[in-house]
Amino acid sequence: MASNTEPTFNEEELIEKVVSGEIPLRKIDAYTDKDTAIRLRKCAIEKMEGVQFEHIQNYTIDAESVTKRNIENMIGAIQIPLGIAGAIKVNGEYANDEFMLPLATTEGALVASTNRGCSAITASGGANVRIFQDQMTRAPVFKMDNVAHSRKFVDWVRRPETFEQMKEKASGTTRFGELLSVEPYVTGNTVFLRFAYDTKDAMGMNMVTIATDAILNLISDEFGAYPISLSGNMCTDKKPAAINNILGRGKTVAADVTIPKELVKKKLKTTPEMMEEVNYRKNLLGSARAGALGFNAHAANIVAALYIACGQDAAHVVEGSTAITTMEVNEYGDLYCAVTMPSVQVGTVGGGTSIGTQRDCLNLLGVAGAGKVPGENSKKLAEIVAAAVLAGEISLIGAQAAGHLARAHAELGR
Amino acid sequence: MASNTEPTFNEEELIEKVVSGEIPLRKIDAYTDKDTAIRLRKCAIEKMEGVQFEHIQNYTIDAESVTKRNIENMIGAIQIPLGIAGAIKVNGEYANDEFMLPLATTEGALVASTNRGCSAITASGGANVRIFQDQMTRAPVFKMDNVAHSRKFVDWVRRPETFEQMKEKASGTTRFGELLSVEPYVTGNTVFLRFAYDTKDAMGMNMVTIATDAILNLISDEFGAYPISLSGNMCTDKKPAAINNILGRGKTVAADVTIPKELVKKKLKTTPEMMEEVNYRKNLLGSARAGALGFNAHAANIVAALYIACGQDAAHVVEGSTAITTMEVNEYGDLYCAVTMPSVQVGTVGGGTSIGTQRDCLNLLGVAGAGKVPGENSKKLAEIVAAAVLAGEISLIGAQAAGHLARAHAELGR
Amino acid sequence: MASNTEPTFNEEELIEKVVSGEIPLRKIDAYTDKDTAIRLRKCAIEKMEGVQFEHIQNYTIDAESVTKRNIENMIGAIQIPLGIAGAIKVNGEYANDEFMLPLATTEGALVASTNRGCSAITASGGANVRIFQDQMTRAPVFKMDNVAHSRKFVDWVRRPETFEQMKEKASGTTRFGELLSVEPYVTGNTVFLRFAYDTKDAMGMNMVTIATDAILNLISDEFGAYPISLSGNMCTDKKPAAINNILGRGKTVAADVTIPKELVKKKLKTTPEMMEEVNYRKNLLGSARAGALGFNAHAANIVAALYIACGQDAAHVVEGSTAITTMEVNEYGDLYCAVTMPSVQVGTVGGGTSIGTQRDCLNLLGVAGAGKVPGENSKKLAEIVAAAVLAGEISLIGAQAAGHLARAHAELGR
Amino acid sequence: MASNTEPTFNEEELIEKVVSGEIPLRKIDAYTDKDTAIRLRKCAIEKMEGVQFEHIQNYTIDAESVTKRNIENMIGAIQIPLGIAGAIKVNGEYANDEFMLPLATTEGALVASTNRGCSAITASGGANVRIFQDQMTRAPVFKMDNVAHSRKFVDWVRRPETFEQMKEKASGTTRFGELLSVEPYVTGNTVFLRFAYDTKDAMGMNMVTIATDAILNLISDEFGAYPISLSGNMCTDKKPAAINNILGRGKTVAADVTIPKELVKKKLKTTPEMMEEVNYRKNLLGSARAGALGFNAHAANIVAALYIACGQDAAHVVEGSTAITTMEVNEYGDLYCAVTMPSVQVGTVGGGTSIGTQRDCLNLLGVAGAGKVPGENSKKLAEIVAAAVLAGEISLIGAQAAGHLARAHAELGR
Repeated sequence: MASNTEPTFNEEELIEKVVSGEIPLRKIDAYTDKDTAIRLRKCAIEKMEGVQFEHIQNYTIDAESVTKRNIENMIGAIQIPLGIAGAIKVNGEYANDEFMLPLATTEGALVASTNRGCSAITASGGANVRIFQDQMTRAPVFKMDNVAHSRKFVDWVRRPETFEQMKEKASGTTRFGELLSVEPYVTGNTVFLRFAYDTKDAMGMNMVTIATDAILNLISDEFGAYPISLSGNMCTDKKPAAINNILGRGKTVAADVTIPKELVKKKLKTTPEMMEEVNYRKNLLGSARAGALGFNAHAANIVAALYIACGQDAAHVVEGSTAITTMEVNEYGDLYCAVTMPSVQVGTVGGGTSIGTQRDCLNLLGVAGAGKVPGENSKKLAEIVAAAVLAGEISLIGAQAAGHLARAHAELGR
Repeated sequence: MASNTEPTFNEEELIEKVVSGEIPLRKIDAYTDKDTAIRLRKCAIEKMEGVQFEHIQNYTIDAESVTKRNIENMIGAIQIPLGIAGAIKVNGEYANDEFMLPLATTEGALVASTNRGCSAITASGGANVRIFQDQMTRAPVFKMDNVAHSRKFVDWVRRPETFEQMKEKASGTTRFGELLSVEPYVTGNTVFLRFAYDTKDAMGMNMVTIATDAILNLISDEFGAYPISLSGNMCTDKKPAAINNILGRGKTVAADVTIPKELVKKKLKTTPEMMEEVNYRKNLLGSARAGALGFNAHAANIVAALYIACGQDAAHVVEGSTAITTMEVNEYGDLYCAVTMPSVQVGTVGGGTSIGTQRDCLNLLGVAGAGKVPGENSKKLAEIVAAAVLAGEISLIGAQAAGHLARAHAELGR
Repeated sequence: MASNTEPTFNEEELIEKVVSGEIPLRKIDAYTDKDTAIRLRKCAIEKMEGVQFEHIQNYTIDAESVTKRNIENMIGAIQIPLGIAGAIKVNGEYANDEFMLPLATTEGALVASTNRGCSAITASGGANVRIFQDQMTRAPVFKMDNVAHSRKFVDWVRRPETFEQMKEKASGTTRFGELLSVEPYVTGNTVFLRFAYDTKDAMGMNMVTIATDAILNLISDEFGAYPISLSGNMCTDKKPAAINNILGRGKTVAADVTIPKELVKKKLKTTPEMMEEVNYRKNLLGSARAGALGFNAHAANIVAALYIACGQDAAHVVEGSTAITTMEVNEYGDLYCAVTMPSVQVGTVGGGTSIGTQRDCLNLLGVAGAGKVPGENSKKLAEIVAAAVLAGEISLIGAQAAGHLARAHAELGR
Repeated sequence: MASNTEPTFNEEELIEKVVSGEIPLRKIDAYTDKDTAIRLRKCAIEKMEGVQFEHIQNYTIDAESVTKRNIENMIGAIQIPLGIAGAIKVNGEYANDEFMLPLATTEGALVASTNRGCSAITASGGANVRIFQDQMTRAPVFKMDNVAHSRKFVDWVRRPETFEQMKEKASGTTRFGELLSVEPYVTGNTVFLRFAYDTKDAMGMNMVTIATDAILNLISDEFGAYPISLSGNMCTDKKPAAINNILGRGKTVAADVTIPKELVKKKLKTTPEMMEEVNYRKNLLGSARAGALGFNAHAANIVAALYIACGQDAAHVVEGSTAITTMEVNEYGDLYCAVTMPSVQVGTVGGGTSIGTQRDCLNLLGVAGAGKVPGENSKKLAEIVAAAVLAGEISLIGAQAAGHLARAHAELGR
């Protein structure tokens, strides 16, 4: 619907004015309803660029809603094929059931491979999952006068009464969020404060940004220190960083399963010993030698497919890729497998979670929207993510063990 | 279409048999056509899980094609809102034009922010982009008898005639790919061989996997060494790793632009000095202090949105996140900005590039399919990716500089 | 002096019996006094290996004492040339004076270079130094049954009453040490507990090892968990590791100085701008690109020379090498320089601190033995180390700026 | 001996003039002979600082020589106790014998522990050692105009004829050194060139610095690019960096041994299985979780003790600490142990290698001075270093396995 103050043009005119540059692409919405604006913008692009879009216009998601929350300059939608893997049995504290995993991907074989891992896990009694920490962080950076000033600032920050003030300030900005801790890190005259919050069912980046912003006002008022930037990269968001691997960001989750040797043979066509060997030389030695921050086979694949399906931030695949995978033959000759994910940044409210197709997937997992107990839905989702990654690791390592390693054993008669 | 040998059931029956477990989810395709199979699988899931999908069934992409190449157990599609940013002027060796960037994302403000960066770049004459290396790698891992054996193997691998044999073997598996080099890395009795290939317009993971597999046969035949795994994680694929940052994987690309100080003020509402300061304390010092492998603000955001729009592998966002961003005030007081991306793994054939909506986006950029000169389309896409990431970095660092830093300057009267 | 029970041999006989293998090298001490044992051992080696030692026998340190505490199988001593740099003015909280730095090194130019840096610092009013944290760590590793068991263990460890019990247990083993905190880190079924202690004037590795050992007994008694190893490498001792850079180990210290531009010119023959430029491209960009854990020019050189002179553990040079050096031209055109050292592991009691020559050096700095207030001597030493490293960085970056960069400017007429 | 032009003072006068500041500390040499200068400088310091040195004056090394090559402002020497470990049998390509290891350290138990490892190795037939690469690097950093300029520079550097010119230029500066390769690394407008040289028996830092300096002249003459600094930290010297771990610097060496299970029991009081377990959870998982660049127990300890004894640069302990240690129970139940050291930077000429006590130690190992075939002595020393580190790792991991892990097994009745 056109706003009151804008003149009225017909569609042809609008397209022409956009093409000629008279009306900017992002202003079309002012002259018409959302869906029309999207269509006209698409047409304008087609004219400007001399292309013909054949598919992107075929969307069914709610334009009104997504243009408000998720996208600007919308011209349509991308369709990502959605497959299903599972059921996978998850024995978590929040996820305690069998789940069908929605995986949105364009990489052939990924769903099938994950499915195989799910089958092995479920047949082995399910993936046991535990969350060890749950906190979203934001770390503004300050420039102080010098080292002595940095020290004074750090001393002030570390005072219990300062923390209480910060906590109060933060709580004024959010109904659900809660400041858990603040840790100072110094580099000469530069000080980083890493604030950690409980953000309940939200992934929480916006929440912690707003809360931290309020705390920054407190800091300038009370201590007289001004931030260079609201984020100083020690958060660390969407970049691989040791600080997240060590201290965690979002949910820190681990999942494991012990697969009986018979099942390794039946489901994965290999042996516990061979899988242990592949995991050792590839995921541990190879990663160590490569200077890696992730010690896994392909956690990012599963994380990407689940995140895209479930309306999570696709850029958080970065942190998902830093999982550590371990596989050990136990005293009974069975295979113990575990994945540890230091930074699972997921939410069930906000972001892309309210878009129709994504919501369908969250519903499938029973985690759409806020939990009855705030936070329980996002924790449940995190547990499912870890179990799914475990399935992916088991399947791929199994395949590699059943491939070349098996061939080698056969040829060598071992 | 049902295969000849399978009995015929009506839809109700098929759903029932899937729900009861008689027919596995992945076998529905054997009894009906692709689109019906997808629909029935969705219905079965709904019954089994007690949910009602409202949106995922609304897809228009070609089921026949994607179920063959991109997905298994398909039940529908996820829709990701698609926005447009630009025009951005790119002065590359392959991309030399103004481009409208297709960005598929659910993160509000990302398109608008990138758009602002594009505007600053274009007004400054465009982003200059160069590719410094182009090679896809695969690194199998071998277990040798001991260190002396590892040394013999390495000596053999390093012989020029061995390389010629490997090159020939690889060329037998691919029309376009070409083995460029092989580098051995040793850890006691474990040897990794990192094979690097030119894969032209394909991202190339499949191509190099098949070619390396053939070389492995040569190695067992000629040297008698057997791989533990076709991938030993020194490739490194989809995990953040120093080896990729240092040696590169896929395209190694850098993009830069010098923004006149007047434009910094007009477009970004800040100054070159403040942006340099934010970039220095955040992207350099903060990342260093965090033990990061990426020294940028949010490269992963732009990479994710472009990759999803363009049918790239979403898990390769991981490597995209390791960009290094630099900003320097030059002798004229203008702002020199650069991003360097060691591992841009993109292709214009294969993967998700032939799906309708994704192909629309590749068409928009003029890079759909193989280039006239093989490889030029994927290189063009890589140049556009780097320019887009540069836009994203400029916009975000500009915003942070215009935010708190500006406020601090104002309050301090500096 | 020979023990009562051992037979008496003359020197010739003893040497023969050692050469023939009848008496092991390490047993000579049982037959004679310490100095004679050292001499005879040396002679035996000479005979066995067919060499003639010309210098190592020329030692004057107390054989009785060092063979008890510092060395086994002693055959003499290595002499490391000792030079002096300074005076360097240090404005710390513990070190507040001008100091002459004792540097033991065989690398020509190192003392002269450090001296030049000291001169620039002192002329600029001295190095301001602050300690931000002081704690020695030890991290045993446990194997649990599975992830759920890991979680139970972590929950138990995090209970305040568990910490009180641990604290008490630790305090029973040491007069000075104090348990400050314990942090659990999980990798599937593997749990690491990082214990942090205040160890006062001792570097503290022995102290924390003993205290942690006692706590391990508590853990097996109370929780039933048994360690795989007393050290699980998350301490991290003598290996470069992000955990130490981020969380600190030993003393976390920062030192800075602002050098007026005139002094930069006079003392270092260059300009603040050129030094900032060298530091930026070398210490920041170069280190980032190299995947480094240290962002400095040559901190290890100064740390090694000071540690060897002062009886510190030479292997702790590793952690010393992870300093971050920053240089910034300030608003007045002067050069602000800072070094931040996350892990300065020094002590003034224990280790090599009581050996004569080393004690001379500690005396020179006024830090020999325990402080009047326990801990103040080791803190003073740490402050001096940081100031010395700052001197080294300033001198080397200055030299590089005055070298090629200056030549370039001259030739280019800039 | 006093120079002709300087006035003559007696010792008292000289000391007074130094104390008063009339004569700088470093100028005393101009008025007297070296040994007297050292003594007077010491006396002056004593007066200035109000201390009394009791031991540092007791040196016997050649003052004339060390003040020319190794130290400035000399006031005496530090004595480091020297112990002996071994014999250790080494089966290398250059070191092929039993060796007694000279270890200079102040850390009690280190010699005894290493000795135990040597014993286990020798009883198992010796350590097998191989060198995989031998090259010293230097990496100057350049600032280019922009990315396009960086690309032109890189293209020029990669031309075969450019390399030939560089090679020739380098060869004009050194009799023994040889340029092996040059690799460009780009970060926007910053280019690093990593030059690698064969430096024969010299550790080679000086040699490569001089040779690279000559090449820099060639580069300014021919291409017009000027370096910001002769070293841009991608060398990387004396800082832990992934580039060295991956690409190597100095000698890349690996050593291994298989210890029969009976010997593990007899010599190390534990089992192959327990040692494998400790190594796995500590050196692999613990290091991975800590974000480490070194995956070993205490390589730095052995490297430090050997380097100090043998006149090596103590700051190169940093690179020594990045070893990877692996332990695997083989099919016969014996323990396969290996260490891989990417960066062993040693020489047998230059540096501290000609000082009396250090030369004694090099003589003991049969590696003093240049080899008959240039380079063979430094390679022999590198092989011995790797074997010694292997001994240290075996002993410490054995002790940890025999300690808590054994106790746990006992208590649990496993």
